[in-house]
Amino acid sequence: MNMIEIITDKKFGKALSREQIAFFVNAAARGTVPDYQLAALLMAIRLNGMTAEETTDLTLEMTHSGDMADLSSIPGVKVDKHSTGGVGDTTTLVLAPLVAACGVPVAKMSGRGLGHTGGTLDKLESIPGMSVQMTEEAFLRQVREIGLAVIGQTGQLAPADKTLYALRDVTSTVDSLPLIAGSIMSKKLAAGSDAIVLDVKTGSGAIMQTLEGSLELARAMVEIGTLAGKPVTAVVTGMEQPLGTHVGNALEVKDAIDVLAGRTEGELLEVSLLLGAHMLILAGKALSMEEGRAKLLDALKSGRGLKKFAQMIQAQGGNPKVTEDLSLLPQPAVIRRVKVGRSGYVGSMDATKLGLAAQAMGAGRIFKTDVLDYSVGFVLPVRIGDRVEADDLFFTLYAKSEADADKAEGAIREAIRLCDEPVKRPPLWYAVVTRDGTQFSPEAEDMGKRG
Amino acid sequence: MNMIEIITDKKFGKALSREQIAFFVNAAARGTVPDYQLAALLMAIRLNGMTAEETTDLTLEMTHSGDMADLSSIPGVKVDKHSTGGVGDTTTLVLAPLVAACGVPVAKMSGRGLGHTGGTLDKLESIPGMSVQMTEEAFLRQVREIGLAVIGQTGQLAPADKTLYALRDVTSTVDSLPLIAGSIMSKKLAAGSDAIVLDVKTGSGAIMQTLEGSLELARAMVEIGTLAGKPVTAVVTGMEQPLGTHVGNALEVKDAIDVLAGRTEGELLEVSLLLGAHMLILAGKALSMEEGRAKLLDALKSGRGLKKFAQMIQAQGGNPKVTEDLSLLPQPAVIRRVKVGRSGYVGSMDATKLGLAAQAMGAGRIFKTDVLDYSVGFVLPVRIGDRVEADDLFFTLYAKSEADADKAEGAIREAIRLCDEPVKRPPLWYAVVTRDGTQFSPEAEDMGKRG
Repeated sequence: MNMIEIITDKKFGKALSREQIAFFVNAAARGTVPDYQLAALLMAIRLNGMTAEETTDLTLEMTHSGDMADLSSIPGVKVDKHSTGGVGDTTTLVLAPLVAACGVPVAKMSGRGLGHTGGTLDKLESIPGMSVQMTEEAFLRQVREIGLAVIGQTGQLAPADKTLYALRDVTSTVDSLPLIAGSIMSKKLAAGSDAIVLDVKTGSGAIMQTLEGSLELARAMVEIGTLAGKPVTAVVTGMEQPLGTHVGNALEVKDAIDVLAGRTEGELLEVSLLLGAHMLILAGKALSMEEGRAKLLDALKSGRGLKKFAQMIQAQGGNPKVTEDLSLLPQPAVIRRVKVGRSGYVGSMDATKLGLAAQAMGAGRIFKTDVLDYSVGFVLPVRIGDRVEADDLFFTLYAKSEADADKAEGAIREAIRLCDEPVKRPPLWYAVVTRDGTQFSPEAEDMGKRG
Repeated sequence: MNMIEIITDKKFGKALSREQIAFFVNAAARGTVPDYQLAALLMAIRLNGMTAEETTDLTLEMTHSGDMADLSSIPGVKVDKHSTGGVGDTTTLVLAPLVAACGVPVAKMSGRGLGHTGGTLDKLESIPGMSVQMTEEAFLRQVREIGLAVIGQTGQLAPADKTLYALRDVTSTVDSLPLIAGSIMSKKLAAGSDAIVLDVKTGSGAIMQTLEGSLELARAMVEIGTLAGKPVTAVVTGMEQPLGTHVGNALEVKDAIDVLAGRTEGELLEVSLLLGAHMLILAGKALSMEEGRAKLLDALKSGRGLKKFAQMIQAQGGNPKVTEDLSLLPQPAVIRRVKVGRSGYVGSMDATKLGLAAQAMGAGRIFKTDVLDYSVGFVLPVRIGDRVEADDLFFTLYAKSEADADKAEGAIREAIRLCDEPVKRPPLWYAVVTRDGTQFSPEAEDMGKRG
């Protein structure tokens, strides 16, 4: 067996055998295959696809290409949660404290920002003193003691995925369903939890921009989880616009704290409750979505959620007072309020362009070595379907300089279409996929009936 | 402009602009783009194709990515010839001396063996003392003095192609029509001749194994030549079996000398006369194929062709006596004559497997650094359609060892199908493509009428 034969088979659209997949995954993990051969194979996979069986084989081989986290010393059912990536998508910071406050241990390994999407680790690091790197031992101890830890990977989880992911990013092969499914699920399976809730984004800011593609991805990941013996619930949620109103690292921490403190409602809260309720169900702490939602709301209203967040911050070396005093978060040099300038309706948004605008301000990395400015980003209070007047606040920029603010103002304006006719608000969520099938939301059913 | 945008456009099947093509070709020539990005782009081109305009842009950008040979100091019309590669395909060694003997200067830069196909430079180097490397000045002087030189590239012709070619070989992207056409034509245009005859092989030993694919390739290359202002005649010839009876470096030199000495007739001679006559027509030395063929046959029968070959060998440091005494060529350790073993008809051959059998014996390289054994290979006197008896000679092996001979005997037997029913002989040539259109051979017309 050699790489050229494997590339050739995929080039001709053949299904690869488990042995062929094991060969290139292990070679990728050990660095014994040149990048150019992996790049050619990734493009052949992107263009010719993989069968369900190949995708599962790929995932399981990547899962076992390195260390496997062992969470067995933490009592209870551990439920992991993963988002395919969005803009203003900071549900982890809201739901992890709420779920932990309901007695379900959350031992979560998160990632960094990538492209136009933010990363939980970067957001957490905007809290003064906060550390997201620790040993596996310290990680397990923290979860046993306070029921909650959100950190970067310990050990070498799925090293083959690390190699392939880095290559995909620079060879335009990120948008491949089997490669996305394999990448996400291999890391989640290696991370050792008992069950997984997946937030599969769909819309202009998502990897999979169509509902069809998002459903296909959700189903592929649920199938892989099922074959690996782990219950997986995938929720397809909207990413036609930023989920929260805040985009940027410290700004999203502020947004999460506002939600946990009961000062902010809206879609960030609603999606966090939705995903959190599915987590409680998988953990056996709720029998229905209604019960799960009620428990989470109780944790929120009683202040136990915000307190749990403060506990985690303290345990990881950060200043827990940020949960009471938001001025302790990094502050930008320039704050600029921008008015709409015309009356009408908010028609549609290019959420990817909005994410890239924040990245360009310094909230995200263009090169891996870029240093982030945690203070920058923007707050966008308008939602698709809103009626706006010329003098209304459109968005507020938090920038490093006036020049950066100028650029961002233009980019954000360009990413939002205003129109004269009323516009329907997009659904919060579209579908829930489990091993038992797909359940569509009432709004998605309506759209189906109309389309 | 950046590489990821270019890869993305081709991934989505868009046509690349001249500027995009110039960007990646120049980056490939200068080594300023990572191999993995070129590899992903090559696979996207292989799977999504290129338009005729893109193929021409690619060729012209590669042509101008390095030095351009200047043959203007050689008087007369210089006609180049190129084969897409075959097995036992040593027409250059037959036709170059004959064409030169007819007064048309031949200033030819050739290549080395690749995969299952032989290379003219390797064959020439099997002649004791023969050198194929010289300065451009010495090359031009030799052609002015004796009308003939066959050497390796001088200077840096089409360096972008060199980079891309090396990558294609290890990423399974050799079999792409626009990449093949661009690679061949960029080198030929940079090599500076006034007109070009292309031998496009078709069949089991060719890059393009179907007649349709071979015709498409021939037409693409003729179109590129036309747009570049150089007359190109492409002849589609059969590669269902080795062209000459001899396969291997010194063995093919022997075959060419036998033909030039008038001792051997058959398909190697016929295809050499066909291509050579087209060269004479392009050079203005013949008005018809009949006249061209007659002139070449006169050069052969008078001994002027063989004498011209001896002159070239001497000019390039080799021993010209090989043209009279074949025992001066490298001799193998083992010679084994193999009988057919059953009666029947020679049904079909896998010419690629036959080429690979010679490669495995040491006649070709598996790795670039492999040292060739010039003496090894085999002689296969039977042709498709021949009636054979069990006691007839099937082939003769020229091997390094008995073990090598055993392996080759099995591989060659496996590559040739014997059958009980009579089989039609495949045509010598199928079509001639020029800027004026395609002219099919009578045999190809018959096949078309039957199909």
